[in-house]
Amino acid sequence: MTPEEFRRHGHQAIDWIADFLENPARYPVLPSVKPGELTDALPASGPECGESMDRIFADFERLIVPAMTHWNHPGFLAYFANSSTGEGILGELFTAALNGNGMLWKTSPAVTELEQVALRWLREWSGLPESWFGLIYDTASTSSMHAIAAAREAADPDSRTKGARPGLVVYTSQQAHSSIEKGAIAVGIGQDYVRKIDVDDDYRMRPDALAAAIESDLAAGLRPCCVSATVGTTSTTSIDPIPAIADLCERHNLWLHVDTAYAGAAAILPEMRWAFAGCDRADSLVTNPHKWLLTPMDCSIFYTRRPDILRRAFSLIPEYLQTAQDPRAINLMDYGIPLGRRFRALKLWFILRSFGREALAARIRAHIEMAQTFAREIDAHPAFERVAPAPFSVVNFRYTGSDDDNRRILEKLNSTGEVFLSSTVLKNRFTLHLAVGNYGTTPQHIAKAWSLLKSAAGV
Amino acid sequence: MTPEEFRRHGHQAIDWIADFLENPARYPVLPSVKPGELTDALPASGPECGESMDRIFADFERLIVPAMTHWNHPGFLAYFANSSTGEGILGELFTAALNGNGMLWKTSPAVTELEQVALRWLREWSGLPESWFGLIYDTASTSSMHAIAAAREAADPDSRTKGARPGLVVYTSQQAHSSIEKGAIAVGIGQDYVRKIDVDDDYRMRPDALAAAIESDLAAGLRPCCVSATVGTTSTTSIDPIPAIADLCERHNLWLHVDTAYAGAAAILPEMRWAFAGCDRADSLVTNPHKWLLTPMDCSIFYTRRPDILRRAFSLIPEYLQTAQDPRAINLMDYGIPLGRRFRALKLWFILRSFGREALAARIRAHIEMAQTFAREIDAHPAFERVAPAPFSVVNFRYTGSDDDNRRILEKLNSTGEVFLSSTVLKNRFTLHLAVGNYGTTPQHIAKAWSLLKSAAGV
Repeated sequence: MTPEEFRRHGHQAIDWIADFLENPARYPVLPSVKPGELTDALPASGPECGESMDRIFADFERLIVPAMTHWNHPGFLAYFANSSTGEGILGELFTAALNGNGMLWKTSPAVTELEQVALRWLREWSGLPESWFGLIYDTASTSSMHAIAAAREAADPDSRTKGARPGLVVYTSQQAHSSIEKGAIAVGIGQDYVRKIDVDDDYRMRPDALAAAIESDLAAGLRPCCVSATVGTTSTTSIDPIPAIADLCERHNLWLHVDTAYAGAAAILPEMRWAFAGCDRADSLVTNPHKWLLTPMDCSIFYTRRPDILRRAFSLIPEYLQTAQDPRAINLMDYGIPLGRRFRALKLWFILRSFGREALAARIRAHIEMAQTFAREIDAHPAFERVAPAPFSVVNFRYTGSDDDNRRILEKLNSTGEVFLSSTVLKNRFTLHLAVGNYGTTPQHIAKAWSLLKSAAGV
Repeated sequence: MTPEEFRRHGHQAIDWIADFLENPARYPVLPSVKPGELTDALPASGPECGESMDRIFADFERLIVPAMTHWNHPGFLAYFANSSTGEGILGELFTAALNGNGMLWKTSPAVTELEQVALRWLREWSGLPESWFGLIYDTASTSSMHAIAAAREAADPDSRTKGARPGLVVYTSQQAHSSIEKGAIAVGIGQDYVRKIDVDDDYRMRPDALAAAIESDLAAGLRPCCVSATVGTTSTTSIDPIPAIADLCERHNLWLHVDTAYAGAAAILPEMRWAFAGCDRADSLVTNPHKWLLTPMDCSIFYTRRPDILRRAFSLIPEYLQTAQDPRAINLMDYGIPLGRRFRALKLWFILRSFGREALAARIRAHIEMAQTFAREIDAHPAFERVAPAPFSVVNFRYTGSDDDNRRILEKLNSTGEVFLSSTVLKNRFTLHLAVGNYGTTPQHIAKAWSLLKSAAGV
């Protein structure tokens, strides 16, 4: 494509996207395609000769868009809802055009430094210690794997050269995200050495159970190395008691990782800061702007007070990547697995500046209020019951019938194309899960979901 | 930003990028900024209230762009040069706007299926077995780490539950990318168990040395598990003898991973297919469209003949991600660390269709021809010498003086802002490294580099 063709098709694309952003609800939130349908509609082989972008765009509209689950639909109320705002989209556009790669400072000073600047801004807004170091990975799963690898390095510095040896133990709660277990598998700690600590009735890790598990492992000659606690667990957004957990970590010299992948965005609200008490005592923390901070996929921030350990675990500098040493020219490839580094900070910087802290906080605050209003509706209705506290913007609830009744209600609701809720299992019961987090979601969308729910339940 | 504001700023952005693509050489390829200069030019804290996009764009042009290393500059001849084409940029634009997340088929059928379709097309063009499974990760380092994790799983299925145990051994060559060693560190195999096999005079892994190392480790009671061979090594693009290595892997039941991160794109040229002989016998292979296939960062493809092993190593399905089982609705989160999955296939599909195989092959062919011409110039000039064969689009060479002379020449050359070459060390000598791979690079750019080189050397 020539630059002039890019100009023409680029303007078309911008108009298409502006129309889409004006009304993302024009498409059903969940597509009606069946598995394999898109695959079968596309040629089995790629074209020998090039095709026109007009034709490719036409197929994009005809085949791809209708096979999308529309995360940008304001009725997307499943998992952790998220958004790509105009600012974020433009950031990604420039990122793709400049195509910078921040493996070394030298291979793109702006990629390296803007990442540090944006992460410093957000760290300050979130009340995290000024001295912390941060960098961006693709997903929270990758960030948490790096936390566990750093914990392994801290507990067993020989593991880098001699390999992991059985007996290191990682602690997390029964409500933790599956990525903690996956990270422990990946770095060679093993599933048998992941303790999923009991939670209390509000789905929070029990410090007494954690203390007992650590003592028991120590008595068995094992080597506790890491606790991964969560502020905002995946099912219920429960808040583990970080101060008590931090006490235990200090006593036993364990790496404390805090997964705030979803809830971390709420730390910029003064009135929500209580939920993050004790996080400043963590060794590492993950927060994903691509979840609740209006940033398009992907952007997961990993903060750590101990970058030296992370660097010791992962730094390897081959001859072809040797550069002059300068304390202000950090090479981010030294701090993890990926060598190449996309300019992800640009979209985040656009968003932080264009919104400013107040407007970002106002949007998150509005999401929390919508969820609280919905929780009150559930609490007040005799045919529904709430299953967990709702400290943030997620509500877990059930129709007061069987699991199958609830499954049917969910299926009926989601087949409307107007809203998409997801489910989980809490105390062995199938549970409906409503998450507010999309930029465009308004109280009207929640009211619609509520009305559809009651109608699906026949009440 | 409202949709109308997005429309206005989006059109501005497209015009800016079209102008940029018309002449990416308007900026020096290497910026003149000093470490910390951009950081110091930006506020220490983020803004409380939002700022206008006009002001943000102005800062972007004034501060960010001049601090970029311009990978899109046609004089970018360092490392493995790459490009972001118009097609790829538009793909990323739609990806950001739709913001699909392909962790499960259900969370975006199009994200999941188009990835499979595009990877099937490319697999066929590359002459790889039809039965192979593929998926996209961010970088080759991540892909290769997954290969080593799969090898660990295949050799020691207990490692998932019981953790890695010392004694598994990974083999690669002295010329392999550092990510292989880093991957072995990450998954708990350890640096002491990575054998960097000797290379021959052409920097290719020596199968006799590999066989001897395996025998020696077996005799010592260790457990060889993986060979990572390379087609197109990072310094010299040397081609390991895959057929002989595959024989050894079969004999000893080792996982054969082939790193074709850079060179893999050349497999779509019939006349280059010889370089990939034996790759069809690999257990896994990585190829990065974001290197030589005109695709913006990031897009690294991991192909494997044994997806069942990868899945066994990484599948963990929590309650909140349970979906109906359907053999055509694969859930890509089951095949690796990252749970979230950006719609990276869209840009690749745009590129494969808009160019078609012939035009992509023609561009790669032209890059190879430019490098071969340059290699002949070096060979013919008495003041320069070539240091390694150049089977693809990379030439390694020296001025026939001291290492310091060569360092000075490189520094002088790169300070012009017209070209950017990198360096490596081969046979203990500082070596200049010229890589052709940018879409806009023409024979005139290579001639310019050659003329600047001679002038810097004073010959």
